[in-house]
Amino acid sequence: MTAQILDGKATAATIKSELTERVSALKARGIHPGLGTLLVGADAGSTWYVNGKHKDCAEVGIASIREDLPETASQADIEAAVTRMNENPDCTGYIVQLPLPDGIDTNRVLELIDPDKDADGLHPTNLGRLVLRTAGDISSSLPCTPKGIIELIERHGVSLNGAKVTVVGRGTTVGRSIGLLLTRKAVNATVTLCHTGTTDLAAHTRDADVIVAAAGVHNLIGADMVKDGVVLIDVGVSRVTDPDTGKSKVAGDIAADAVAKSSWYSPNPGGVGPMTRAMLLSNVVESAERSR
Amino acid sequence: MTAQILDGKATAATIKSELTERVSALKARGIHPGLGTLLVGADAGSTWYVNGKHKDCAEVGIASIREDLPETASQADIEAAVTRMNENPDCTGYIVQLPLPDGIDTNRVLELIDPDKDADGLHPTNLGRLVLRTAGDISSSLPCTPKGIIELIERHGVSLNGAKVTVVGRGTTVGRSIGLLLTRKAVNATVTLCHTGTTDLAAHTRDADVIVAAAGVHNLIGADMVKDGVVLIDVGVSRVTDPDTGKSKVAGDIAADAVAKSSWYSPNPGGVGPMTRAMLLSNVVESAERSR
Repeated sequence: MTAQILDGKATAATIKSELTERVSALKARGIHPGLGTLLVGADAGSTWYVNGKHKDCAEVGIASIREDLPETASQADIEAAVTRMNENPDCTGYIVQLPLPDGIDTNRVLELIDPDKDADGLHPTNLGRLVLRTAGDISSSLPCTPKGIIELIERHGVSLNGAKVTVVGRGTTVGRSIGLLLTRKAVNATVTLCHTGTTDLAAHTRDADVIVAAAGVHNLIGADMVKDGVVLIDVGVSRVTDPDTGKSKVAGDIAADAVAKSSWYSPNPGGVGPMTRAMLLSNVVESAERSR
Repeated sequence: MTAQILDGKATAATIKSELTERVSALKARGIHPGLGTLLVGADAGSTWYVNGKHKDCAEVGIASIREDLPETASQADIEAAVTRMNENPDCTGYIVQLPLPDGIDTNRVLELIDPDKDADGLHPTNLGRLVLRTAGDISSSLPCTPKGIIELIERHGVSLNGAKVTVVGRGTTVGRSIGLLLTRKAVNATVTLCHTGTTDLAAHTRDADVIVAAAGVHNLIGADMVKDGVVLIDVGVSRVTDPDTGKSKVAGDIAADAVAKSSWYSPNPGGVGPMTRAMLLSNVVESAERSR
């Protein structure tokens, strides 16, 4: 069996073109969505991510609001910047780029974000609303990576209704939040959450229709751990040394021999990442659409 | 195999005696925990529950604050009562008894509760904090029934570390929240959430070490669906007609022939209920302990 690729780049491009139309429609009604970013310090990776978000905004017609604070910013400085974003009517949604510098109480900063402007969908109030709303529409932001994974699968015509999904890894951005979305009535999957404390991981992956691998352990999921025809979503991030070049590179959780048995596959890198970025834009647009 | 009973009544009594000592210690430091209840209307079941909560408070030395509003109370009346509870320094934790009358926006009322006074642990902000905090202590209220189930199991010397737990039912008070507690590093269980959309429920229950049945379907879990030595927690609630008396009575999800194969069993009624009530008191005491 040759796996078909769940094409995150092409799907994200389709979503961005849909969002461009929705942004135009909002502007015609006098509503101008704007994404804010708050970056503290000059970490190269964080700066690259923030720049990418502003580039994405420009592509779909969303305005950008950017605040960069020095590495030496105090807790009070950062909280004041968050308050400015909360109060700025041009900023309809925003993100605080993580990690914040050592010594900063990150939870306190994140809880200060107005949940209605939480573009990442990771404010506790919004995650809690997701716990409580099993059916019906959710009128608050959803976490971007889980939302992006589900859209990526469903837009390729693969149904999750009644599917057995095994999630590997209990990080907050994927592992602990995706099950809350997958088990809603609108998606209706059965979900097992595995992690480093799971005694027999293979028993849980072997009968799964879909595996979401978010462990950060290179090649954790091998051929002996999956059934034929499985759908594989790799969102694990670890660093390995390329034997050819000697350079460090990003690697995923799923081994090539497992991919060979799958029906659909989303690699990492090159898979879910563009979807996460598109969902951030989608959260900003949806929040602006709800605002009137 | 004869199942041993996970004795919710005796365990709750032990916890209440521990709480009595902690309340005395708080009072010695000048801190007087007080539980508030807000009841709207005169539904017999709701009134019975609220009366029970005040009786429990008296047992352990927690003060009671009670507001009863008529069935005709408006949204504004109810929200004003919630604001009074938030502002009353004698009320260190409180609950709004559900259901609220038809026409009332229940989510809006519940979100108005100060999360620091949320005795039920069901405020979205507190549920969201639970999503985000995989390790370490949680300094906010946890949902009472999930917390009570875990305490009931662990206080009988049964370890959940590495256990396969299958949860049946996606209600918010148990099904959608207990996995968030069970998969934290401190408990470390592997959890599958099954529901009405699950295609092969028996496949998920048959290899489970622990089953938490919260579906509300009488005798859903039969002997052919469980392995020998399983731990069975029944929190399902449905009503059946007693063939002897012709009267309606509360019944659980787990059939007698499944119980016969189990090592430990918590029946319903007569099992987790007293633990839920004890956890409400525990949330009030913990919140008062955190207040200084």
